Amino acid sequence: MLTTRKPKRSPGRPVASAEGDARDHLLTAATELFARQGVAATPFAAIAKRAGLTPAMMHYYFNDREHLLDCVVEEKIAPLIASVWSPVQPNASPEDLIRGVVERLVAGVERNPWIPSTWMREVLNEGGLLRSRVLRKLPFDKVRILSAAIAQAQTRGAIETNLDPVLIVFSILGLVMMHLATAPFFAEVFHRKEPKPQAIGRHITALLLHGLKPSGQ
Amino acid sequence: MLTTRKPKRSPGRPVASAEGDARDHLLTAATELFARQGVAATPFAAIAKRAGLTPAMMHYYFNDREHLLDCVVEEKIAPLIASVWSPVQPNASPEDLIRGVVERLVAGVERNPWIPSTWMREVLNEGGLLRSRVLRKLPFDKVRILSAAIAQAQTRGAIETNLDPVLIVFSILGLVMMHLATAPFFAEVFHRKEPKPQAIGRHITALLLHGLKPSGQ
Repeated sequence: MLTTRKPKRSPGRPVASAEGDARDHLLTAATELFARQGVAATPFAAIAKRAGLTPAMMHYYFNDREHLLDCVVEEKIAPLIASVWSPVQPNASPEDLIRGVVERLVAGVERNPWIPSTWMREVLNEGGLLRSRVLRKLPFDKVRILSAAIAQAQTRGAIETNLDPVLIVFSILGLVMMHLATAPFFAEVFHRKEPKPQAIGRHITALLLHGLKPSGQ
Repeated sequence: MLTTRKPKRSPGRPVASAEGDARDHLLTAATELFARQGVAATPFAAIAKRAGLTPAMMHYYFNDREHLLDCVVEEKIAPLIASVWSPVQPNASPEDLIRGVVERLVAGVERNPWIPSTWMREVLNEGGLLRSRVLRKLPFDKVRILSAAIAQAQTRGAIETNLDPVLIVFSILGLVMMHLATAPFFAEVFHRKEPKPQAIGRHITALLLHGLKPSGQ
């Protein structure tokens, strides 16, 4: 009953692995369609069609949309969040912590280019369908380490107090997701070449670390 | 034929003015529903119902959705954009220009609290239904003044070159819209009081002007 979209596979391949392939194709197709048109506008049938499989296969592997969204967050978004935040440790400087978070986030998104527009639409938007699922994956212990490092630097006058040490977490994630999601739109608006993720990362790191101030000061 | 939702009005009121009221109510109801659920999920009937008027009135004043969206951008978003950018003049410092843009944008959004989530959903999202309309309203001459001021400061070493003087326009607008649109979500995530627009503006200005550097440096 199983068919995959890669006919060159040998017919003797174990079923478990072919099943894994079909499931992977479906999950990948789902994330691509979510990024382009949002979760609400993406029925199971469309996902199956894009993967070259049947709607019945979607139901077989993912049961219903709620479970599919659980799988997307658990298998695709949570590992990215973990890779971004797990190296965050106390005693690092706020500068190093922010530089690391931005670098790892940009790198992680380069491997998952469907994430920024999905994040904008389904996490940041009111009524976004991944919001509460993603929220449960945020490593608050790590986020607190960054906020505490900034707050501590503020008490010794090393960072200005108008900067909110908690709000800045949203600034960091929001800047990365927004700039990466809107890179083609930005290119269209300003008649420029689409900025590469690395260039966007450099801009954001410069902005977060010193804004308009020259870095040497 | 015209009915308004404010029965206390005197019956002798001129029709033209009552018409203006009904149209205003419909436009306001439209923006409120757009902010909450997006343009695509908001049929004429829902807008009319929210305004306490009939779908026929929606068609009478706005014809179809395309024309309604033209009116929303022309009458509600374009004036805000103009108020933000028109004071931008050459020979001002990049710091003063950015401070002014953020201040006026935050103030303008306070008067139009439906704008940030609509901006996120319908301008920044791929497939957003206001994207091309809003794009036509961006005052590129003013945007270029800001970019040129930053680029000039970079040539004399007063601003680091990793900061992209054009990309920063998206950073500024994106930070303001994202933080204002997600203020209730932020409060929920971090169990804090919802940050006020003025506090968000102070944070964003500090971030843009000096990032983690103390302002005195």
